[in-house]
Amino acid sequence: MSWGNTLKLTIFGESHGSAIGAVLEGLPVGETVNMDGILEQMARRAPGKDLSSTPRKENDRPEILSGILNRKTTGAPLCAVIANTDIHSSDYAELRNIPRPGHADYPALLRYHGFNDMRGGGRFSGRMTAPLVFSGAVCRQILKRRGISIGAHVLTIHGVRDTPFNPVTVSDGLLDRLSTCCFPTVSPEAETAMRAEIESARQSLNSVGGIVECAATGLPAGAGGPLTEGVESLLSPLLFAIPACKGVEFGAGFGAADLFGSENNDSYYFDGGTVKTRTNNAGGILGGITTGMPLIFRTVFKPTPSIAKEQDSVDLAERKNTKLAVHGRHDPCIVPRAVAAVESAAAVCLLDLMLTYHLIGGERT
Amino acid sequence: MSWGNTLKLTIFGESHGSAIGAVLEGLPVGETVNMDGILEQMARRAPGKDLSSTPRKENDRPEILSGILNRKTTGAPLCAVIANTDIHSSDYAELRNIPRPGHADYPALLRYHGFNDMRGGGRFSGRMTAPLVFSGAVCRQILKRRGISIGAHVLTIHGVRDTPFNPVTVSDGLLDRLSTCCFPTVSPEAETAMRAEIESARQSLNSVGGIVECAATGLPAGAGGPLTEGVESLLSPLLFAIPACKGVEFGAGFGAADLFGSENNDSYYFDGGTVKTRTNNAGGILGGITTGMPLIFRTVFKPTPSIAKEQDSVDLAERKNTKLAVHGRHDPCIVPRAVAAVESAAAVCLLDLMLTYHLIGGERT
Amino acid sequence: MSWGNTLKLTIFGESHGSAIGAVLEGLPVGETVNMDGILEQMARRAPGKDLSSTPRKENDRPEILSGILNRKTTGAPLCAVIANTDIHSSDYAELRNIPRPGHADYPALLRYHGFNDMRGGGRFSGRMTAPLVFSGAVCRQILKRRGISIGAHVLTIHGVRDTPFNPVTVSDGLLDRLSTCCFPTVSPEAETAMRAEIESARQSLNSVGGIVECAATGLPAGAGGPLTEGVESLLSPLLFAIPACKGVEFGAGFGAADLFGSENNDSYYFDGGTVKTRTNNAGGILGGITTGMPLIFRTVFKPTPSIAKEQDSVDLAERKNTKLAVHGRHDPCIVPRAVAAVESAAAVCLLDLMLTYHLIGGERT
Amino acid sequence: MSWGNTLKLTIFGESHGSAIGAVLEGLPVGETVNMDGILEQMARRAPGKDLSSTPRKENDRPEILSGILNRKTTGAPLCAVIANTDIHSSDYAELRNIPRPGHADYPALLRYHGFNDMRGGGRFSGRMTAPLVFSGAVCRQILKRRGISIGAHVLTIHGVRDTPFNPVTVSDGLLDRLSTCCFPTVSPEAETAMRAEIESARQSLNSVGGIVECAATGLPAGAGGPLTEGVESLLSPLLFAIPACKGVEFGAGFGAADLFGSENNDSYYFDGGTVKTRTNNAGGILGGITTGMPLIFRTVFKPTPSIAKEQDSVDLAERKNTKLAVHGRHDPCIVPRAVAAVESAAAVCLLDLMLTYHLIGGERT
Repeated sequence: MSWGNTLKLTIFGESHGSAIGAVLEGLPVGETVNMDGILEQMARRAPGKDLSSTPRKENDRPEILSGILNRKTTGAPLCAVIANTDIHSSDYAELRNIPRPGHADYPALLRYHGFNDMRGGGRFSGRMTAPLVFSGAVCRQILKRRGISIGAHVLTIHGVRDTPFNPVTVSDGLLDRLSTCCFPTVSPEAETAMRAEIESARQSLNSVGGIVECAATGLPAGAGGPLTEGVESLLSPLLFAIPACKGVEFGAGFGAADLFGSENNDSYYFDGGTVKTRTNNAGGILGGITTGMPLIFRTVFKPTPSIAKEQDSVDLAERKNTKLAVHGRHDPCIVPRAVAAVESAAAVCLLDLMLTYHLIGGERT
Repeated sequence: MSWGNTLKLTIFGESHGSAIGAVLEGLPVGETVNMDGILEQMARRAPGKDLSSTPRKENDRPEILSGILNRKTTGAPLCAVIANTDIHSSDYAELRNIPRPGHADYPALLRYHGFNDMRGGGRFSGRMTAPLVFSGAVCRQILKRRGISIGAHVLTIHGVRDTPFNPVTVSDGLLDRLSTCCFPTVSPEAETAMRAEIESARQSLNSVGGIVECAATGLPAGAGGPLTEGVESLLSPLLFAIPACKGVEFGAGFGAADLFGSENNDSYYFDGGTVKTRTNNAGGILGGITTGMPLIFRTVFKPTPSIAKEQDSVDLAERKNTKLAVHGRHDPCIVPRAVAAVESAAAVCLLDLMLTYHLIGGERT
Repeated sequence: MSWGNTLKLTIFGESHGSAIGAVLEGLPVGETVNMDGILEQMARRAPGKDLSSTPRKENDRPEILSGILNRKTTGAPLCAVIANTDIHSSDYAELRNIPRPGHADYPALLRYHGFNDMRGGGRFSGRMTAPLVFSGAVCRQILKRRGISIGAHVLTIHGVRDTPFNPVTVSDGLLDRLSTCCFPTVSPEAETAMRAEIESARQSLNSVGGIVECAATGLPAGAGGPLTEGVESLLSPLLFAIPACKGVEFGAGFGAADLFGSENNDSYYFDGGTVKTRTNNAGGILGGITTGMPLIFRTVFKPTPSIAKEQDSVDLAERKNTKLAVHGRHDPCIVPRAVAAVESAAAVCLLDLMLTYHLIGGERT
Repeated sequence: MSWGNTLKLTIFGESHGSAIGAVLEGLPVGETVNMDGILEQMARRAPGKDLSSTPRKENDRPEILSGILNRKTTGAPLCAVIANTDIHSSDYAELRNIPRPGHADYPALLRYHGFNDMRGGGRFSGRMTAPLVFSGAVCRQILKRRGISIGAHVLTIHGVRDTPFNPVTVSDGLLDRLSTCCFPTVSPEAETAMRAEIESARQSLNSVGGIVECAATGLPAGAGGPLTEGVESLLSPLLFAIPACKGVEFGAGFGAADLFGSENNDSYYFDGGTVKTRTNNAGGILGGITTGMPLIFRTVFKPTPSIAKEQDSVDLAERKNTKLAVHGRHDPCIVPRAVAAVESAAAVCLLDLMLTYHLIGGERT
């Protein structure tokens, strides 16, 4: 249920309970935590910024219960709590017997025998990524001080495509810029076109999905291992934990199926005294171990299942087919908000790796 | 390092050590294990069957050290050992200073400070999937008795494409047939065309990759959970543990990025007394929980990095650029052999899920 | 860092931070949680009840953040937070350079490089048992509905001895009575004599320790396993997690060193249709597995290290020997308050066991 | 089921299966492993040395399957297998329906529904400590190179008592001597008297138990943590995993119940530039963290349950009371052989601690 090796992440809470939060165990001691930097990341994930996201206003100000004293990590588990506010639970009352297509309603009913808190999606809500983003924001500050940058962009929205990362030359400058944007794209035109695509879906009472591409630079070679010790095996469960994620690929990913070995292999060369590769189809990982080249991966998010358009469903109480239109406040596209969650998963995973393989020293000053 | 919740899998060994093997803890007690069925699966993964795979002859007959008595599981950890035979370690001697592009050689050197057993790829060898296939073969027998079938096929090889599964109607009959084939495809023509593509790559001293599509039928709804409790978060680390795997997607996967919500959502209806969905873009999982529809996922395997074609690399001893051609016995395409590994990862994962969520009872007869 | 198999317990917080708490994952779904019963247990652990304990008044009212809806468990992780109030942190300011003998001050300084929150003992405080007692109170309600009772008594305080449990005939009635007492003893005279011993220590600016004996009845036979799967291996880490615990023994425990095998072995006999043993030196566990006889174990707690008497210590700043008298509010004996923590550790452990070995069904009504 | 944090230990096998063994994951890379030192430790645990132990001759020569190459650790999981030889399984055939008092027979029958391998005690056999001793022997070599010594002695056998360790001055010289003895005592007279006590029990068809006291010197301060992170919580499950262990205590242990705080607290002083304590009632652990003073703990082992004397039991097939005398080859006292297992548990635990808290660097030379 919890995740991690040296660093352990436990996320608790339900969307319309009193609060959600995270416990992060195993952080290095004496690390400075900058709350402004955390709030900046929380805001990227929060809804209500514009028409592309749900109008629910979340007051996502994490309260630190333990683990930080005088802005430094103490070595105790870091527990942060984020209060649930602006809750309109009545919106969900009628849905109990009519499961929403594409949502967890029906399988969760069987899994929890009807006792789960369905309000606001309960534990299946996208809101559950807020504690992940909090945790990632803490970890990325620690990584940044060691020269590791993490950033992601919206690569596609319903077929509209941004310029992909160059997997060899992607720079910390670009990643640092992207990692402060609410709708991060490499090309400004892509953002405009994507916003138009989302607005068009919204107006037709529909929704769209897309792909997030993430990169990390500054990683030392030598972190990870074969089999389930690999970077992919550590990171993928955290990415699939983000609601609506249906796929994860590293480097050339599914595209590698169409390449010859001679094309896909990344040739080594000496760049001064450093071993580099001329291409980076590996996405910075070979044999589950970091190569020292940029980490590159992509995750796909399905279209938001909550749509105002009428859909077919079933009435479980009356045991018959029925129709359903989902009301309430919903994003026509969650991909831009998912970017912060993807980067956060990467940050937590990379800090765990750096700690496990003793590749970063303590701050302690 | 180990994997699993109720069922724990630990894989040990190195390609040219004396033996490799697996410890599987948490199996239900009193389950019949049929060794012929295991050997059949081991043979699917083993090389040397034809020109599409390496001529190394592996005598993959697992020896059971503990956990089975009189063909029944005893409740003790099941440990099986597979001897390493037909080893030609001298083939690898010259490679120590010149890392092979696309292989783990270089990052492993840094990770293990030069102490890892490089012979035959050591722990990074595809041979390490033999203990996984053994474990999967045990688990699939237990699942099969409860009506759960698992099968996969080669969906693409370097652009040559088999008929994909119909995610709604895929049958246990089809899966059972595929799960005994060494080169499983839905369409016989696809196998012929794929074999030709592989042979063509081999003759040009090159290699090719491809995609494996896997399905499971007979799964009860209600197994899994949100966040890292999800089926995807449980299964993906095991899939990425298979060497050369660079991507994993469930249901519509990356294709969902191009769909509207109204297209991607799977509508519910009553089929007699059973709730089903008319489409299955979810791949049988919503909110990380099984829906009762077939589980569908795809994994991509990159082209075999070992190619006889000359490639650029570096000489780490002399600290200069150099050329390299990889000799030895290598598959021009590992995708057909990877099918058994993919199915096995699914079998281990699904048995763990069934046990964790108490969805199967004991055999005990 | 976290504990458990099917049930996972994570405790967070520091004594003088804003709050402490627990996350309990894996509880069965649909279980009724009675808050009055929880508060009753929290009160047993809380200080300030009389002269035998510290006058600090803790307002230990847990706030449920998630996991319970309409008094039933939802299947989401149960997170409860207990605010820290009545904090007098200035009491601890002068101790930073002069470690208190018998406390964690000195080794914690090295472990956390000076960044740990020392105020109130930080994470080493006995206050950290409050989240354990909360968790145990939830679990014991679930166990009680299945006929499992847990209770403990103060067996000795500085040589003053209560009547020990009869390990064969100890009754649920006795355990139920003890488990609501703040100073539980089998014999009322023992409580009087023990209180006198504690008061005498207090008046001489000293402290005393003692032994807690715990029992559980109604356990089914067949839970646990050999090696680290054993009940002792599951329970002992949780008992040693209680501050000041220095020893744990089961059944005859250290006394078994002086017995012949013929004395120590518990003979079987049929009591009607039930297999029982005439003695219970095993304490209800053989081969790590419950026998169906009462579980019996003892834990020893050292005398409170904080004493007003002057002691030798060192001044770490000036690097010289010095003297120290510990001021502040401290218990002359923590053993009576530790009883609730011991029972709670047992409750969490036994529920984990019952769930892991499928020995209790769901409530769900 | 497995144990450990940075280092993970998995033990497999059953007493009369083909082999038993261990997988040890997470060892530091490039460490020299001396097989003679391992065999020396295996021999200490092996039976058949004299009249005090079972005449079964075990050929305990571990075969390394992976993880060591050219006598150095490779970073792959270390798997060692120990063949089961000299097996007389027919001795156990008649016991299936008549559980032996003090053995796991009866609870194991319920736990495993009759499918467990009862021959030779199966997985409950003392033989299962052989893989632990192997693992400990590897770990102690790594620790020894960093100046950490581990040794234990038989403190009592059925009331006959050896000189206890001085918890402050216990020396590595003494520990090194004890850790090569088959019947280690501080005082030679104690060994003589204990052997006489054991022989007397044997002649009267009975058995005796005793206490093992273990110490470790050279440990740095600062390893461990509060709550379940403590040294006691890490070590105790491994000690209780040793068959027949019924209690574990650290430092003054149960004796602390009779001390005043002023007696039990260990005063600090400067010994040159080093902080030490004048006494060591803490046993080298405060707040779960090593203090830099010697680690001291004791474990009690009950008398061997297999005795030739007639005992009361039940016939489970005929559902009636009956008599039983246990034949076969059994130790009248397992305590001397348990010493190597206790030291090994300590060695594995201490290496895990040193790795987790980054207190030892790599060898790598």
